[in-house]
Amino acid sequence: MTQVADERSLDLLFRQARTHSGWTDRPVPESLLRQAWDLARMGPTSVNCQPVRIVFVRSPAAKERLKPALAPGNLDKTMAAPVTAIIADDGAFFEKLPSLFPHADARAWFVNNAALAASTAHRNSTLQGAYFLLALRAVGLDCGPMSGFDQAKVDAEFFPGGVVKSNFLINIGYGDPATLHPRGPRLDFDEACRIE
Amino acid sequence: MTQVADERSLDLLFRQARTHSGWTDRPVPESLLRQAWDLARMGPTSVNCQPVRIVFVRSPAAKERLKPALAPGNLDKTMAAPVTAIIADDGAFFEKLPSLFPHADARAWFVNNAALAASTAHRNSTLQGAYFLLALRAVGLDCGPMSGFDQAKVDAEFFPGGVVKSNFLINIGYGDPATLHPRGPRLDFDEACRIE
Repeated sequence: MTQVADERSLDLLFRQARTHSGWTDRPVPESLLRQAWDLARMGPTSVNCQPVRIVFVRSPAAKERLKPALAPGNLDKTMAAPVTAIIADDGAFFEKLPSLFPHADARAWFVNNAALAASTAHRNSTLQGAYFLLALRAVGLDCGPMSGFDQAKVDAEFFPGGVVKSNFLINIGYGDPATLHPRGPRLDFDEACRIE
Repeated sequence: MTQVADERSLDLLFRQARTHSGWTDRPVPESLLRQAWDLARMGPTSVNCQPVRIVFVRSPAAKERLKPALAPGNLDKTMAAPVTAIIADDGAFFEKLPSLFPHADARAWFVNNAALAASTAHRNSTLQGAYFLLALRAVGLDCGPMSGFDQAKVDAEFFPGGVVKSNFLINIGYGDPATLHPRGPRLDFDEACRIE
């Protein structure tokens, strides 16, 4: 018989989950970040390349380093969040392919093709960022993803060297439901999809 | 009390799910594609922009139109899959923002900034593609995602006009577990993440 996910879990991951901007002061245990990683890392990537790199900005000192890069609308909620994850692309991901994908010389496909390496790093780190966001929800955490920040400033501060590039941010914590606004509308199947 | 997802559902979405290349002949009902969309569309996107567009390539005639664009290694499995989803970025997504995000004139942020519009379309369609992949698994389907294809050929055939651009493909069906190879290794938390 075909297995399907249970309804309560789908509510938690998709239907009732909301993007949060207001946070309770309940702390985020490191163990939950690790549990979420252990789920998210199982999601598929091209030739198993797994290019995502994540910095969890948690200490007040690290938050201060992130602060100058934040767009004004993202400043207060990000400084207040217990943890902010920087989801980033490792442009040198292919150096790990001999162990991650030993079936072929996949490193060779990327090492001399900078455009393919960059697009593969970016697409797959974004996929992994989405897996991770849903995994954070699966372990009971709330998320506030955002892309409004100065990528060059974040990279200079957290990824000096130019190989790893920031992609998007996720505030992580336990959201305060009293701060939520009504949910925005979603596109119907027939507005976004077609069958041929 | 904090809600967490049940273990069986997490096995289905993450831990036991595999990328499939061999398919049984069990058909994929349209109702399941619609159920998966109704889950995936709830996932977060920047300013609720929802730029993903999906073409489900199902008929033999449509599969023949896709065929010339496929990389050799992706040809047979894609032609054999009951359905192949083309996950695409709508470069004109911002035209829907007045209804999707009525709180501000978000359309104005993108309409004269082609670079921001393109990067937002691509990042968010990729996030939505990942949500959709996990949602397909949640309704009991198996997936085979891939990026090895000629994007220009797919765009010319399925998205003439230059506004919508193909991003990646997902073969969809009921996988034949007998065709699976052992799962590739995954990066440990400390190889991909750090806490600051």
